[in-house]
Amino acid sequence: MVPADQTDSPHGTPPLSAPLSDIAIARQARKAPITQVASRLAIPEEAVIPYGRDKAKIDGAFLRSIEDRPAGRLILVTAINPTPAGEGKTTTTVGLGDGLSRIGKRVAIALREPSLGPCFGQKGGAAGGGYAQVVPMEDINLHFTGDFHAITAAHNLLAAMVDNHIHWGNALGIDPRRVLWRRVVDMNDRALRDIVQSLGGPANGLPRESGFDITVASEVMAILCLARDLEDLEARLGRIVVAERADRSFVTARDLKADGAMAALLRDAMMPNLVQTLENTPAFVHGGPFANIAHGCNSVAATRAALRLADYVVTEAGFGADLGAEKFFDIKCRQAGLKPDATVVVATVRALKMNGGVARAELGREDVDAVRRGAANLRRHVENCLGFGVPVIVAINHFTSDTQAEIGAVREAAAASGVEAVLCRHWAEGSAGIVELAEKVAALADGGTARFHPLYGDALPLREKIEAVVRRIYRGAAVSIDPPVLRTLDRYAEAGFADLPVCMAKTPYSFSTDPSLLGAPEGHAVHVREVRLSAGAGFVVAICGDVLTMPGLPRVPAAESIRLDEEGRVEGLF
Amino acid sequence: MVPADQTDSPHGTPPLSAPLSDIAIARQARKAPITQVASRLAIPEEAVIPYGRDKAKIDGAFLRSIEDRPAGRLILVTAINPTPAGEGKTTTTVGLGDGLSRIGKRVAIALREPSLGPCFGQKGGAAGGGYAQVVPMEDINLHFTGDFHAITAAHNLLAAMVDNHIHWGNALGIDPRRVLWRRVVDMNDRALRDIVQSLGGPANGLPRESGFDITVASEVMAILCLARDLEDLEARLGRIVVAERADRSFVTARDLKADGAMAALLRDAMMPNLVQTLENTPAFVHGGPFANIAHGCNSVAATRAALRLADYVVTEAGFGADLGAEKFFDIKCRQAGLKPDATVVVATVRALKMNGGVARAELGREDVDAVRRGAANLRRHVENCLGFGVPVIVAINHFTSDTQAEIGAVREAAAASGVEAVLCRHWAEGSAGIVELAEKVAALADGGTARFHPLYGDALPLREKIEAVVRRIYRGAAVSIDPPVLRTLDRYAEAGFADLPVCMAKTPYSFSTDPSLLGAPEGHAVHVREVRLSAGAGFVVAICGDVLTMPGLPRVPAAESIRLDEEGRVEGLF
Repeated sequence: MVPADQTDSPHGTPPLSAPLSDIAIARQARKAPITQVASRLAIPEEAVIPYGRDKAKIDGAFLRSIEDRPAGRLILVTAINPTPAGEGKTTTTVGLGDGLSRIGKRVAIALREPSLGPCFGQKGGAAGGGYAQVVPMEDINLHFTGDFHAITAAHNLLAAMVDNHIHWGNALGIDPRRVLWRRVVDMNDRALRDIVQSLGGPANGLPRESGFDITVASEVMAILCLARDLEDLEARLGRIVVAERADRSFVTARDLKADGAMAALLRDAMMPNLVQTLENTPAFVHGGPFANIAHGCNSVAATRAALRLADYVVTEAGFGADLGAEKFFDIKCRQAGLKPDATVVVATVRALKMNGGVARAELGREDVDAVRRGAANLRRHVENCLGFGVPVIVAINHFTSDTQAEIGAVREAAAASGVEAVLCRHWAEGSAGIVELAEKVAALADGGTARFHPLYGDALPLREKIEAVVRRIYRGAAVSIDPPVLRTLDRYAEAGFADLPVCMAKTPYSFSTDPSLLGAPEGHAVHVREVRLSAGAGFVVAICGDVLTMPGLPRVPAAESIRLDEEGRVEGLF
Repeated sequence: MVPADQTDSPHGTPPLSAPLSDIAIARQARKAPITQVASRLAIPEEAVIPYGRDKAKIDGAFLRSIEDRPAGRLILVTAINPTPAGEGKTTTTVGLGDGLSRIGKRVAIALREPSLGPCFGQKGGAAGGGYAQVVPMEDINLHFTGDFHAITAAHNLLAAMVDNHIHWGNALGIDPRRVLWRRVVDMNDRALRDIVQSLGGPANGLPRESGFDITVASEVMAILCLARDLEDLEARLGRIVVAERADRSFVTARDLKADGAMAALLRDAMMPNLVQTLENTPAFVHGGPFANIAHGCNSVAATRAALRLADYVVTEAGFGADLGAEKFFDIKCRQAGLKPDATVVVATVRALKMNGGVARAELGREDVDAVRRGAANLRRHVENCLGFGVPVIVAINHFTSDTQAEIGAVREAAAASGVEAVLCRHWAEGSAGIVELAEKVAALADGGTARFHPLYGDALPLREKIEAVVRRIYRGAAVSIDPPVLRTLDRYAEAGFADLPVCMAKTPYSFSTDPSLLGAPEGHAVHVREVRLSAGAGFVVAICGDVLTMPGLPRVPAAESIRLDEEGRVEGLF
């Protein structure tokens, strides 16, 4: 299964008006030299570290030099619960950036980097779609500037040092049965989920159970995305809890003296990457934490840089707003001191129809009632977002099959929640199709009405933080936490982690923990079956339901049709 | 254990004349912009794909456009058997390149890329030493341009596709007990040598034994280094044998349709990397196959590009000449149609003394007799290299503790084998210290005396190829090959691989398979305990003795002292 936030594509079925595939459109892009893209944000050429001609990293020293500049407006793009019909969150983020640029605003987009592994599984890339894409699409989807490889290496160095420490006498007294740090690989590889390692005799260490996660699920990824600078990065890496002793006390990466070498491996990865949209709008594509067991937002370093370089910054958060926006607000904004100015909730008529009970095969048929039913999902997300004190606007990501009556039903639903809904045709038309939304978002962000506050205060006990999210965001009636899990929360609090926010891990497909419960369910029970401490990232993960941290490949992997054409271009990333 | 060919350092103990550490010297480098370095080889700016300001890849289309140019002179730098005293093969390769440049020659150096993993183990980097280094040293030793990460990803994609194929019904009839393709990680991690994978139930596949090698040991690495272009790369990847069926027939990467996606992952990695020496001499640093179960030479793509861009190309091969030079001649030159013009055999007085029986602690004391005894090792290597039809010169890599009498003894030994030995002080003095060698090597290469021929013809049966290397290079008296191994060789021949060269895997420390047998042993027996087919790389590996394809970290890993300083520079790579 590919994580849903890695698969969002604006249009499950391309409308007739846009006959070209994403990659065909991407290849027609008239890319500006990357230094020219940087110059749109007044980034001097000497601060642009080129990776090829169309990708760059922005020099850390330059970014430090602009830290005191006033911040621009921060706009979050989030969405209704994802469905197989697609919502187009990344596409709308890109389109809105281009739209703001078109109406004369100095804008930067701040996106997540796609994961390499899933490209070879269900689908191709994840860099927007249609005429709202970031380029070079092939590079961004494969190795890009090597950030994820650096994260993989840093993660696995720590893992090797844990086992090496045990092998050479275990001076720290690690309980080999309680090693918490697994390994990672940026590949969909179910065979590595559960392994027994260190077989083959004493020279290979102490045999024990272990396994691999996909790189985006690494705490190192979350740390990279939340660290303010290299110093903060190293401090966070040092706080990673890798194992417990027999007395259940924690052993950290700093205890193993791994933090310095890990930071060295991540030095270049910490610098934000700059690319461009099809319309040459600057886009920072940096960091890509899992939106499930991590917070699913692009890096603080990139967002902060963008805010000091642009007047408007458009960023996204993974999954639907119940997971993505909540974590954006309660984890990323809280930790980084960000104050968002506006929220865009993306919806499609098709996805609302699915939320209203229409089967995927029937989506082509007009069904205004289904839109109205499904719009309960949209309204819930809108109201939740408003609850964070940030003004909201709805973007209707247009499909050619949408009827006027259906679109009208979405507008009515939004209006009933007190917000406006704007039809956008960026997928088919680029910035020309999203001018109205751009103008309204700019006005909303400039309006000064935002009074951002997180859902809960730092001092609320961990258990009550979980309950706050369940009751006020998921609208669940009851939270059940098993006694051993409660005791673990107590241990975290005793160890000094009571002030951390919680990072909820649950299905993205429903407000509840039942992925088939679409629309706006109420009164459901939420069962927290496990909690995990991410002391370096700075949150406590609460796991509700199954969490798959290593996807598998499907029966016919996309890899089978990926290859180089005669000109050395990558075929099969779509 | 770190592979010896990754650890060679010119001077186990830095002499008093050079008080600065390698990294301190590297940081003082006055690097030229990489486009300027490229211009020394008349590479146009549009063919230079920058990775930062001091690293670049050279565009494949440009390299295709110069393929018909005449080739320059090809000079191989090899060495006596490695000892803990150090020989300085990479350092001499770099120094000789700088020396040729100093005397006005248009020169390019062609080196291997160091492996990331071992940097965190026994030692720091591997990019030359003293005043004969390639820079940027920190980058080259860590992620560089991402080539090894791409190789890791391509290798592991194939592994995931093998298990995925079995999981989804195994249409190709793979015998799960006979999967030959392991996984790789660029990390010293003994815990991954032997694992049981796919535990945890049916969703995770079929449990079986497996394991990880270090990335440099991947056949994909060897393939990248031997492939002529992207087309050849994809064809070779397709030929990789990943498993056997119940009838012992081979299943290949092409059968799994993995070759195209693997080639796509390796597209950029195939382009040679350009960096520079401390003296701004252009250096292609590209590819780094294990010198043990692979051929240990830098990439054919880089060597061929260098030959078309420079009048003199200086390249190296891993380990001592018994392994490195033999594979350079019999595998790389044979496959790529290269005709080397001269061979430099590097020796140090200290290493010859160790070959002559002196303990490491006693190396500081003059011992001319020991040098004479140990020089038997040098003479054997010189004569072996001459046997390939290529003229030889000996480079004495100078240490301050060397005495005139000791140096004289080396010269005499070389003369007794009919070649000259030249004292070189490049480590302490850079190009100024290696002018004499540069002049003599240029004259030797220009002399037109080379009549290169491999040791054996393609048509010789595989078993006899192994015997030819053992008898004529190792000077062993007997080769024992167990009957099951002989049957495997027959199977390879029947499957159409009879014409492949053999790639010998044995200890680098001795001509024999006993690492303690220094000097020039004769009459020993060599036992071939296993053979492996590398159908994509195009050789049959013959394993004599233990082969460690995954190193472990030492008790106190170098990682513990690697960190970033206040300016964000990497400390602890030395």
